[in-house]
Amino acid sequence: MGTGMLTLLGCGVVANAILPKNKGFNGGWIVITWGWGLAVFAGVYVAFKSGAHLNPAVTLGLWASGGDLFGGNEDLGIAAVPATISNVLVYISGEMVGAFLGAVIMYLAYKQHFDEDADPGTKLAVFSTGPAIRSYGWNFVTEVVGTFVLVFVILLFGPSPSGLGPLAVALLVVGIGLSLGGPTGYAINPARDLGPRIAHAVLPIRGKGSSDWGYSWVPIAGPVVGGVLGGLLGAAVV
Amino acid sequence: MGTGMLTLLGCGVVANAILPKNKGFNGGWIVITWGWGLAVFAGVYVAFKSGAHLNPAVTLGLWASGGDLFGGNEDLGIAAVPATISNVLVYISGEMVGAFLGAVIMYLAYKQHFDEDADPGTKLAVFSTGPAIRSYGWNFVTEVVGTFVLVFVILLFGPSPSGLGPLAVALLVVGIGLSLGGPTGYAINPARDLGPRIAHAVLPIRGKGSSDWGYSWVPIAGPVVGGVLGGLLGAAVV
Amino acid sequence: MGTGMLTLLGCGVVANAILPKNKGFNGGWIVITWGWGLAVFAGVYVAFKSGAHLNPAVTLGLWASGGDLFGGNEDLGIAAVPATISNVLVYISGEMVGAFLGAVIMYLAYKQHFDEDADPGTKLAVFSTGPAIRSYGWNFVTEVVGTFVLVFVILLFGPSPSGLGPLAVALLVVGIGLSLGGPTGYAINPARDLGPRIAHAVLPIRGKGSSDWGYSWVPIAGPVVGGVLGGLLGAAVV
Amino acid sequence: MGTGMLTLLGCGVVANAILPKNKGFNGGWIVITWGWGLAVFAGVYVAFKSGAHLNPAVTLGLWASGGDLFGGNEDLGIAAVPATISNVLVYISGEMVGAFLGAVIMYLAYKQHFDEDADPGTKLAVFSTGPAIRSYGWNFVTEVVGTFVLVFVILLFGPSPSGLGPLAVALLVVGIGLSLGGPTGYAINPARDLGPRIAHAVLPIRGKGSSDWGYSWVPIAGPVVGGVLGGLLGAAVV
Repeated sequence: MGTGMLTLLGCGVVANAILPKNKGFNGGWIVITWGWGLAVFAGVYVAFKSGAHLNPAVTLGLWASGGDLFGGNEDLGIAAVPATISNVLVYISGEMVGAFLGAVIMYLAYKQHFDEDADPGTKLAVFSTGPAIRSYGWNFVTEVVGTFVLVFVILLFGPSPSGLGPLAVALLVVGIGLSLGGPTGYAINPARDLGPRIAHAVLPIRGKGSSDWGYSWVPIAGPVVGGVLGGLLGAAVV
Repeated sequence: MGTGMLTLLGCGVVANAILPKNKGFNGGWIVITWGWGLAVFAGVYVAFKSGAHLNPAVTLGLWASGGDLFGGNEDLGIAAVPATISNVLVYISGEMVGAFLGAVIMYLAYKQHFDEDADPGTKLAVFSTGPAIRSYGWNFVTEVVGTFVLVFVILLFGPSPSGLGPLAVALLVVGIGLSLGGPTGYAINPARDLGPRIAHAVLPIRGKGSSDWGYSWVPIAGPVVGGVLGGLLGAAVV
Repeated sequence: MGTGMLTLLGCGVVANAILPKNKGFNGGWIVITWGWGLAVFAGVYVAFKSGAHLNPAVTLGLWASGGDLFGGNEDLGIAAVPATISNVLVYISGEMVGAFLGAVIMYLAYKQHFDEDADPGTKLAVFSTGPAIRSYGWNFVTEVVGTFVLVFVILLFGPSPSGLGPLAVALLVVGIGLSLGGPTGYAINPARDLGPRIAHAVLPIRGKGSSDWGYSWVPIAGPVVGGVLGGLLGAAVV
Repeated sequence: MGTGMLTLLGCGVVANAILPKNKGFNGGWIVITWGWGLAVFAGVYVAFKSGAHLNPAVTLGLWASGGDLFGGNEDLGIAAVPATISNVLVYISGEMVGAFLGAVIMYLAYKQHFDEDADPGTKLAVFSTGPAIRSYGWNFVTEVVGTFVLVFVILLFGPSPSGLGPLAVALLVVGIGLSLGGPTGYAINPARDLGPRIAHAVLPIRGKGSSDWGYSWVPIAGPVVGGVLGGLLGAAVV
């Protein structure tokens, strides 16, 4: 449900900013980055009771770091979730399903604006990321760097007395979007990209084009590699 | 008074951004969404001592969730407010009256800019929401989704150690505006829409046009349905 | 020193946004409102040890509310400052002097950009507020409403467990700027307007024009009336 | 590593906003200032265990204030770091190396966009600051003022119960950028400017021009002077 909230709000802000006739049309990069950041903010609250995982790259990064997927919560009587292979797969599966469903609800909220004439690439861009300049190798590098920053800094939230909770993660994601989102649109999350891409493929979107499966491995592989690197380095540093 | 603060500041930011000659004219969607979010921020403080209700959809969502309207405050010696029918009606009535009065004060603060020549639809848009593409059914869906997110996430603030208080609600409303505000201008609050619409109807605004009563049920019914759904699902999940 | 920090940063953001060749030129209303809000943020820290007064309207509002100017700080061994006439005058004098000096330092930081050709009205607007549509009566109303919101909500911060400290005031000022700043540029602070206006009058600014003394009473009287009203109503409600 | 995170994200947001074909192209000053502020936010977490130093001007300011470079952390069993000459040099060296490496990684993340045709000055501006109007004397003044504000306010965070931690510093840097960044692009940090300038000089950037070494002393000397002044005045006031 947390990842569903993430893609509902995250894909929603892109729809608002790039689909015709929306009140936020042409709102620009500051609108998109804050929209995604606050989508993370809401998603973290929704998924709080199972550790606030919204992102397979973070799940894998925690696994790589050697920590639990969720430390548990004594006050609420919730047990810790160790990073076993099966738990990792359960978490990633939930994230994928949620990401798909969130994008479907986003489609319903923006149904009429998808019915307007727009470039098929624009309609896809509401769902999934794409490169500003296509080059699988360099696009991969950009996604690795962005996801590394995400997972590495999240691991370093732990020992510091931030007290900001979900806001800290939200601001981190705003920052990554502002600073590293230019070349690829910063998937930094395989579920955020693949789930909505599947939704794009199966939904009866008026005038839609290709789901660009040729690019789809980049926002999966890049975040996975970056997340694992961030988890390993983070574990070494914390 | 909290809802009055909400519409004073919330309608105010729209006036600033769309009425001619204002210093914030054409400030764009980032201005409007932050303005509404910080209007919630201020309103929550104002209404703090009775539970910070600014929105009938949230009031009804709490009622649907089975919780109190306000848990009370031992430090201040304020008793809890149970969600009885009469309490719900008292809260909603107060929200409606406040929303009307806040819009009137906003009108006074922007009096000269309302006296400028502008499209009658623009002058109405300062007070109440309207659809980007008129379709009562789909506009209703959008309002349901937006208000569902609002109430559902607010209920999930409870068990998490956020410590952000009013800021968390404010950021959530910024996020909903950025992400789901494109098609309908996100009333997500029946009082926020109806109170100012009545103000628009009765105030002697120069060159005003219709108050668009044909649309007025959408930003009431959509938020009510979304809020109740959010309250029910939130109660099931928390 | 706190009010000096306020006008250094606050007038600074206006200089950046409206004087030619600046990197933030034409940054728009979102830049100006966040700049002023974060100027308050920094100023509150600077003036923390004497109660974080940056604004005669707030000082007078606290006096009207019947509270101390500063509750003191036991941890730091600082005594409370009661709201006697002489203390109020000392605080307001300090705010005025600080506001003047902050504007002078701002002028030095932007010296070369003031040397560029620009409309004399633009150069004055860096220092002091002016009406979008001149009408002393309505401009006064707008300043009363804005300052009322400022003082009233600040008084209501007290009983709520916000924990945000200076950030809460900063966000409130961002919100007032977004929502009520359109018609007059939101002085909401007599020192913020008069101190820099005096600086404008005495500094050897290249190509400067009138300091518009005809308008100068509005951003003094409006905030004083609004602040006292906010203090009185706040005291009745808290 | 903290300063590396700072220049990775900070130079990154400039790349996004000014290099051709980026998704954040022409995002404007609000994008750049928030990007730098959140770069500080992330960098502070990364460098938390050694006192969150990202900036030689702050390191020197703390030395001038007579305080430790880092008060230590009993919970984590980390000893205090006194402000000896050798510790100051170690900290500054680490900041310089980190700033260089962060810019190199930024270059890799934006490789394709550096390969596009763009003005050599634009490509340099991604790495290092430059004056809007060249005048070494006045540019120096602007950098002194900006860095003074940074160090002075950071020292005043101490006695106030802010509880915002890294967010407070991030917001302060956003505010300085908005309010004092117009004339010089606000280095306010010798490492942030010199490290990436060296990276610009040594990296094989397509179509690059001069690294503008003639200006390079300004964003070193200005921040050093401003930081020491801020440290001295801060120590006198706290």
